[in-house]
Amino acid sequence: MRVMTNKSIASILSKKFRFKINGSLWIECEAEGFFGPGRTELLQRIEQTGSINKAAKEMGMSYKKAWEMINELNTRATKPLVITQAGGKQGGGSMITDEAKSLIDFYQQLRKRFTAFLEKETKHIIKSS
Amino acid sequence: MRVMTNKSIASILSKKFRFKINGSLWIECEAEGFFGPGRTELLQRIEQTGSINKAAKEMGMSYKKAWEMINELNTRATKPLVITQAGGKQGGGSMITDEAKSLIDFYQQLRKRFTAFLEKETKHIIKSS
Repeated sequence: MRVMTNKSIASILSKKFRFKINGSLWIECEAEGFFGPGRTELLQRIEQTGSINKAAKEMGMSYKKAWEMINELNTRATKPLVITQAGGKQGGGSMITDEAKSLIDFYQQLRKRFTAFLEKETKHIIKSS
Repeated sequence: MRVMTNKSIASILSKKFRFKINGSLWIECEAEGFFGPGRTELLQRIEQTGSINKAAKEMGMSYKKAWEMINELNTRATKPLVITQAGGKQGGGSMITDEAKSLIDFYQQLRKRFTAFLEKETKHIIKSS
């Protein structure tokens, strides 16, 4: 068992520098990354552009990679998150569903709770004591 | 403004797969990574082996890299976290200070609070509703 020491964290970190607690957060499926900032951005760009190809290009991602991500999202959700229409004169197009919008909303709310957690913890390390 | 949808997150994710919220957490100094799992392990291995070189080797890290990490830790703390004695017959040795032990303790307690946060949030996405 470790002998407990009684140095406060605020007394250990030099007051000359700015410290904060930071982190990242994602939803896993079967112990692998499923949804986080990258896929949030991909869905949002598909919503804006109506095109998987344009969304992928804007993110510097190959169409194949974007399609694989969407396929994984679609197969792990109860209903598709992205729907693609067959090309006609307009060359078809893709749109995100209400389920995708709800997933984005959930993740953004989750991020807000996480940010509140990080801010609260940061107060522990910067308090003057 | 986004039109709010009313799909619950639990209804969107397929019940066939196991989902969880996961994340990572670290202390930043001046907007750069300062302390997280890697440096926790480095300090613990120095404590166990009494040697920066052995600790680095165990982690597959160069001595230079380990020394740079320790130098950064030492210069950003109010007191050194690792102390190295000049070599004599025993070839010197390194030890971690009470401040380092307190920093490790703080980070481990912080991780526990973060794990509790993740478990609570995971309940939101797996509840049957």
